[in-house]
Amino acid sequence: MPTPIELVGFDADDTLWHSERYYEAAHAEFEAIVGRYVDVADVRVHDRLLAVERENVKLFGYGVKGMTLSMVEAAIALTDARIAAEDVHRIVMLGKGVLEHPVELLPGVREAVEAVSANHRVVLITKGDLHHQERKVERSGLADLFHRIEIVSEKDERRYAALLEQFEVPAGAFAMVGNSYKSDVAPVLALGGWGVYVPYPLLWALERVEIDASHPRFAQVASLAQLPAALAGLADGAA
Amino acid sequence: MPTPIELVGFDADDTLWHSERYYEAAHAEFEAIVGRYVDVADVRVHDRLLAVERENVKLFGYGVKGMTLSMVEAAIALTDARIAAEDVHRIVMLGKGVLEHPVELLPGVREAVEAVSANHRVVLITKGDLHHQERKVERSGLADLFHRIEIVSEKDERRYAALLEQFEVPAGAFAMVGNSYKSDVAPVLALGGWGVYVPYPLLWALERVEIDASHPRFAQVASLAQLPAALAGLADGAA
Repeated sequence: MPTPIELVGFDADDTLWHSERYYEAAHAEFEAIVGRYVDVADVRVHDRLLAVERENVKLFGYGVKGMTLSMVEAAIALTDARIAAEDVHRIVMLGKGVLEHPVELLPGVREAVEAVSANHRVVLITKGDLHHQERKVERSGLADLFHRIEIVSEKDERRYAALLEQFEVPAGAFAMVGNSYKSDVAPVLALGGWGVYVPYPLLWALERVEIDASHPRFAQVASLAQLPAALAGLADGAA
Repeated sequence: MPTPIELVGFDADDTLWHSERYYEAAHAEFEAIVGRYVDVADVRVHDRLLAVERENVKLFGYGVKGMTLSMVEAAIALTDARIAAEDVHRIVMLGKGVLEHPVELLPGVREAVEAVSANHRVVLITKGDLHHQERKVERSGLADLFHRIEIVSEKDERRYAALLEQFEVPAGAFAMVGNSYKSDVAPVLALGGWGVYVPYPLLWALERVEIDASHPRFAQVASLAQLPAALAGLADGAA
């Protein structure tokens, strides 16, 4: 029986290239700046920044610019508006630094995407800021490997269903590969598709969920190097 | 001879609904805040904010979040870092206010899009921030009228060519309608398509260009109510 999987979608940040570590480094610098005004542990800087981000993501969407505005807002609140303008400027520059970070591919990524594309159509599906994501795709040198590059504002069942309709592929013929079970795996499984989870050592707090590793259309791999075999295994299991 | 125009693209901001006036109001409030620290005319606040925006748009792309970060950066520079954190917070809130502005349709918009869709496929093509633009499209009540909604990071020849390839429509069968000659008309004319210019009273400085009204595939209308007749006239002219 031929594989039922025609189309394979790849997430980008922390699946194809490093990303979260730049955000975490910016958060650490943010704590150092705010720490000049308050006791960081005492005022729970980390939790309060996360609370501001969680509230603002509804209005801002995902991405670095929203994170930067949330950091500015949180810094002013945390310091009771005592923060100096020079330090606000440093926070804005932290955000610019994240936007300018180099695109460093994870090991074996190009080879894995090329191997998968020998047997499947491959697309890139990433969420976040349109301009920043496009710049990273361009600088990754991977753009030519993908049939389509789709940048979406959210990765939920509705968005995946709309993309599959555009691609004219039924959910049962689609596998999504990524480091966020919440955004890359769960909604695709719910639609009747396949999910391959490739965890990355760091995960943003807003992406953390429980994982159901027993699902019949689910596989977990340690790196993309294992992906071609995992896709073949999923298909065999279904045969 | 049947009309050569199969597909009609509509811009969104200041073509379907009001937008720039919310940005201009935020800029005026920004000048009032900075004016507490400096002589607004003396330090050329307007020009210097524009210069910061022009520089940052390369890194930030279009949209309110980038504008807000540029306002924060410009305010700190313009005041030699004397601005109080409370006033930085007011600037962040100005940006949030623009993101939350109501979607108010321009007169006759729904009727015009419906009339055009009787004879053509219609798509919405807008540039800017993915999350903000999607929220505006949803709240406009117009989403159901469009065959596809495309949010792009830039409106240049390359992006229009890629969209037309996805739509499987040659440029000569595509007309774009919008209030920015630079973004909605010029690149489409250059590709061999048709352009209908619908000026809006306000236009962001970075969108201002010379207009070539003599182009054989160009029309200008005062409002979308005149669009169906203008499209028919373009087609007749070509026949």
